Amino acid sequence: MSSVFVEITMSLDGFIAGPNDEIDPLHDWLYPTRGFRKRHGMDGGETTQDSDILEEAMARAGALVVGRRMYDVAEGWDDNPPFHVPVFVLTRRPRELIAKEGGTTFTFVTDGITSALAQAREAAGEKDISVAGGANVIQQYLDAGLIDEMQVHIAPLLLGRGIRLFGDSNRAPRRLEIDRVIGSPAVAHLRFRIAR
Amino acid sequence: MSSVFVEITMSLDGFIAGPNDEIDPLHDWLYPTRGFRKRHGMDGGETTQDSDILEEAMARAGALVVGRRMYDVAEGWDDNPPFHVPVFVLTRRPRELIAKEGGTTFTFVTDGITSALAQAREAAGEKDISVAGGANVIQQYLDAGLIDEMQVHIAPLLLGRGIRLFGDSNRAPRRLEIDRVIGSPAVAHLRFRIAR
Repeated sequence: MSSVFVEITMSLDGFIAGPNDEIDPLHDWLYPTRGFRKRHGMDGGETTQDSDILEEAMARAGALVVGRRMYDVAEGWDDNPPFHVPVFVLTRRPRELIAKEGGTTFTFVTDGITSALAQAREAAGEKDISVAGGANVIQQYLDAGLIDEMQVHIAPLLLGRGIRLFGDSNRAPRRLEIDRVIGSPAVAHLRFRIAR
Repeated sequence: MSSVFVEITMSLDGFIAGPNDEIDPLHDWLYPTRGFRKRHGMDGGETTQDSDILEEAMARAGALVVGRRMYDVAEGWDDNPPFHVPVFVLTRRPRELIAKEGGTTFTFVTDGITSALAQAREAAGEKDISVAGGANVIQQYLDAGLIDEMQVHIAPLLLGRGIRLFGDSNRAPRRLEIDRVIGSPAVAHLRFRIAR
């Protein structure tokens, strides 16, 4: 069966965005990579291991689930968004499907995280499903035991404030399994398996 | 000149102890290692890379600085504590030096972090100084720009609650440099250099 994975960049002190949703300098490691440039329709870029890891995640994702807030924040996504697969947006307000260039569609799902995942799984076929954020959506899927794997790209930053990947919510402890650890001067990639 | 370093185990979600100062299961990766057993006067143990990294940190530390709360929490330390070097305890209440077996001394410092560091530097000689915790003491030294290097051992755990290494204190962003990334199934060791 397809896997459900999280793939996200976090500062060493636990933030995935600043207090105004800003993703820089967190995402600095991405911009020079060939993988990032390719995804955004640009040539060139560095063919480093960081790029390979990014391309690996892109290649396996047959569909994405994102939160409405992330969709709104990223409304700057132009006519050809960098996903190139069906994206399922969790929201409370019904809205017609939006089809963009390059294979990205946005389907607005109003009946909850399980439904969004089922629709994403159907759309992904043999491929995997990426729960792409924001933090609140990732927490909901983690709490529901629906994530199989999580890769956290740890950026060499103390951000000091912003949006915490794991929130402040006083959860019960949970063990993960370390699957892979790879580092570069720009970022450390930590991949975990999560027992269901 | 000697380096000042932090060496600490943190859960993926940022905690270095539970809500009642408990360090398990965070420290599970330490117990099977030869390095840990040696430090506690026991034979045997696994001679893994995890053990090498622990022994490396022990070998370089010529003195430690710790907070009074950490000293109190660890009062279970017996007659032969696992440090085997001079330890400088930050406190507000003056107290006589305590000399234990195995080379550990506890000197109580009442005139602040800079004084404690100067005394530790003097005691360490050619060796380095470990700012060993707790979180609040590490934050004070980081904020004062007195830490050269930080190695965070990331345990494959979501602890959910407890004491955060980097607190909640709304600091300004700060860039680190990734110096080394090593992983095992038990833990990921991330070492950072910090520009002064």
